[in-house]
Amino acid sequence: MKERELIHTITELLHIDSEDAFVFSHDDSLFSLTIDTLVAKTDVPRGMTPSDIGWKAVVMNLSDLAAMGATPQYFLCSITAPEPYPVLDLIKGITRACDQFHCLYAGGDLNEGELSVSGVALGISRTVMLRSGAKPGDKVGVTGDVGRVYAGLKNMDSATPAMKEKIFSPYPRIKEGLALKAHACIDISDGLSSEVYHLAEASAVSLSIYSDLIPIHAEVKEKAEMLGEDPVLWALKSGEEYELVFTDSDINPEIGTEIGEVTSGKGVFLDGEKMPLLGWEHYT
Amino acid sequence: MKERELIHTITELLHIDSEDAFVFSHDDSLFSLTIDTLVAKTDVPRGMTPSDIGWKAVVMNLSDLAAMGATPQYFLCSITAPEPYPVLDLIKGITRACDQFHCLYAGGDLNEGELSVSGVALGISRTVMLRSGAKPGDKVGVTGDVGRVYAGLKNMDSATPAMKEKIFSPYPRIKEGLALKAHACIDISDGLSSEVYHLAEASAVSLSIYSDLIPIHAEVKEKAEMLGEDPVLWALKSGEEYELVFTDSDINPEIGTEIGEVTSGKGVFLDGEKMPLLGWEHYT
Repeated sequence: MKERELIHTITELLHIDSEDAFVFSHDDSLFSLTIDTLVAKTDVPRGMTPSDIGWKAVVMNLSDLAAMGATPQYFLCSITAPEPYPVLDLIKGITRACDQFHCLYAGGDLNEGELSVSGVALGISRTVMLRSGAKPGDKVGVTGDVGRVYAGLKNMDSATPAMKEKIFSPYPRIKEGLALKAHACIDISDGLSSEVYHLAEASAVSLSIYSDLIPIHAEVKEKAEMLGEDPVLWALKSGEEYELVFTDSDINPEIGTEIGEVTSGKGVFLDGEKMPLLGWEHYT
Repeated sequence: MKERELIHTITELLHIDSEDAFVFSHDDSLFSLTIDTLVAKTDVPRGMTPSDIGWKAVVMNLSDLAAMGATPQYFLCSITAPEPYPVLDLIKGITRACDQFHCLYAGGDLNEGELSVSGVALGISRTVMLRSGAKPGDKVGVTGDVGRVYAGLKNMDSATPAMKEKIFSPYPRIKEGLALKAHACIDISDGLSSEVYHLAEASAVSLSIYSDLIPIHAEVKEKAEMLGEDPVLWALKSGEEYELVFTDSDINPEIGTEIGEVTSGKGVFLDGEKMPLLGWEHYT
């Protein structure tokens, strides 16, 4: 069973909405709680230091909170590491990220085994952005640019500093998430194409994306063209970008780039054709 | 570096109190947040089904909340499993435990790799019990009985139903944790001896335990004696018992058994002699 089908079965079984984080209210506050695991085998590219791994484990979780429009408050994590392993270096990466994003690193636990870091982040929101809020008439926006991760991983030896930066020091779009107040939002963990499909499905609308509007870094275009490949396909399937894809009445250009629109109906389109469903899936 | 030393270094580094859960207040509420990972290699004995594993992953976390005197509210988990693996059976165990203990299973994520389940539980408390609250003059109490897990794992083929029950269907002491309102509390994950040392250290007091007061199941005594071993040592080192060890002015016999007392000074004593520090440690 593919991850997508399995998650679908699980959410059906549990009547859980498949959002980036679980949202609950208590008294007058809205909380977002998320858990995300970094698994060495699939999430740690060659050259990533233990400190980078710690940083990324935090960013994965804070990016989920960013997509909900929440302000990060607390981070906990459970580290599983082989013996010997420089656990303290990994923890330095965690504290570095928590300090940077004003989130308290509040402990966790430690186990022996194949390297993995399960992080938990708790955030507080004024309002919450869900995947399911996209409305016909909305524009589709994306923060930053997409494709550098895939382009870098494609051949690490020819990865440019801009590509390496996005792979080894990703950044959660917390400020953008807070500023957005969009109708719907999701972060790019599996790939732009995959996330756009999630938005369309959760909101029961159709999304049309235009390839020439997708913000792709010049060096990504250059590398793709040099290899005779399509930079747009790279951008669609590049995972772990931690950019936000959102829909709203208008796209504020200071927050993101407009790449398409929402209409009533079903399906996801790229330049008028059915968009290929690309992007990283575990369990394939 | 042993786990105990490593955790000490980490907590020093981060100025974190090493409690069973992280406690924070928001408006007028007290929350306890915990993360705990079940790793197949170290936490799954032979004969444990995927459903048992799911159950145990919940109980590990709810037991941490019980030790803080918190009422469980939400459970999330990140499942890492090899392909193929009966993930749905594991999830059924999670939902069974969440239903049983009135905790909402609120989602999580799924990854591919060596089997492990990282659970997160959030609870709400009126007051909080810490490890550091033991006072000279307190009595020491423990819920239930200790030793069945070690006795069963020692030789699974001769494990009695009572031993198997504690291994495969452990129970978090949530009701007891709520009823206690004790000065100090900790749950037994690594072993009674290890937890008593934690209490003494965190509270900067001395604890004296009397071996004939420790509640040990008759079948555990029988098995130990048959093998020419000391059932008290078994009880001291039996991990994953999920009982609560606590100190208070008086021990309510409806909640637990009095096994010793707290005095000023340093150290942990068993029948007047220095207690051996026993119990499961990862990284040894």
